[in-house]
Amino acid sequence: MNFKVRAATKEDCKDISRLIMELAVYEKMPEQVKISHEELERDGFCQNPFFECLVAEVPGEHKSKEGFTIVGYAFYFYTYSTWKGRTIYLEDLYVMPEFRGRGIGKGLLCKVSEVGKDKQCARLELTVFDWNTPSRKFYAAKGAQDLTESEGWHFLRFDKQSMDNLANEAAKD
Amino acid sequence: MNFKVRAATKEDCKDISRLIMELAVYEKMPEQVKISHEELERDGFCQNPFFECLVAEVPGEHKSKEGFTIVGYAFYFYTYSTWKGRTIYLEDLYVMPEFRGRGIGKGLLCKVSEVGKDKQCARLELTVFDWNTPSRKFYAAKGAQDLTESEGWHFLRFDKQSMDNLANEAAKD
Repeated sequence: MNFKVRAATKEDCKDISRLIMELAVYEKMPEQVKISHEELERDGFCQNPFFECLVAEVPGEHKSKEGFTIVGYAFYFYTYSTWKGRTIYLEDLYVMPEFRGRGIGKGLLCKVSEVGKDKQCARLELTVFDWNTPSRKFYAAKGAQDLTESEGWHFLRFDKQSMDNLANEAAKD
Repeated sequence: MNFKVRAATKEDCKDISRLIMELAVYEKMPEQVKISHEELERDGFCQNPFFECLVAEVPGEHKSKEGFTIVGYAFYFYTYSTWKGRTIYLEDLYVMPEFRGRGIGKGLLCKVSEVGKDKQCARLELTVFDWNTPSRKFYAAKGAQDLTESEGWHFLRFDKQSMDNLANEAAKD
């Protein structure tokens, strides 16, 4: 089947929202999704966007059972290593189940890599859950190293309350 | 001792480079640092900067043995969660050994949190090595959760060669 990978536009945000929710359901945490398509429109399509996104689109005659032609997405942004410089970070990569096994995930990953290469990024990084064996195998097969396993990297988070508590202790000028 | 935390300027990049190298020595990987101060100037002080940085400065009369007044830094940028939205990501936080124990690290962390709060970020994230017990204790004491331990997050990387290989497989329009 033909599919096309292209940069998302503001008009794609409703589709992206739908796919974000599908992925969260797969990850068994749909109640965690607090992002609306309006917020995606605001934060991704402004002067200094917080993220960029690619979508995978199939022709109308191959639309999904529910009538969708946007069947996958890759959501990424730029980070920066103080050792290596510019880095492209893949936050989400998702393809609807009925469209899997056709190279769409690979197509999205390759395109993100191309964006990273064009922007002179030194590397492509991402995070996966340890129970997500299909994804870990997919990325490993394409050359990703698991730095949590090989170098003991731990991922930490201050939630909003903890962050705000610290903010309130910041010295005022 | 008095110290001041302020936003870094282009002129601070040589000092930031020096401190990046000191931190890499502490992390036992000085040979990994491939970033020059010119690259920091280019990527941090352009139209759409790839990062932001705070520096901790002490008065001249308290300068370091080698004569430096910039004695610590916090290097951060913005990422984006498809569940929660804007996130501030702390890449590096470092204070020179002779200036530790005076609240400078805490001061930098609080200021980064304040920036995150002002930018309406939903959270503050970072990565630490598992062997870096002092840092893990420091962040835990201030409210950070270890998501690698609690939720099994693994951090993956495609190095430049692997990324470029994938990029070369991207479908051309």
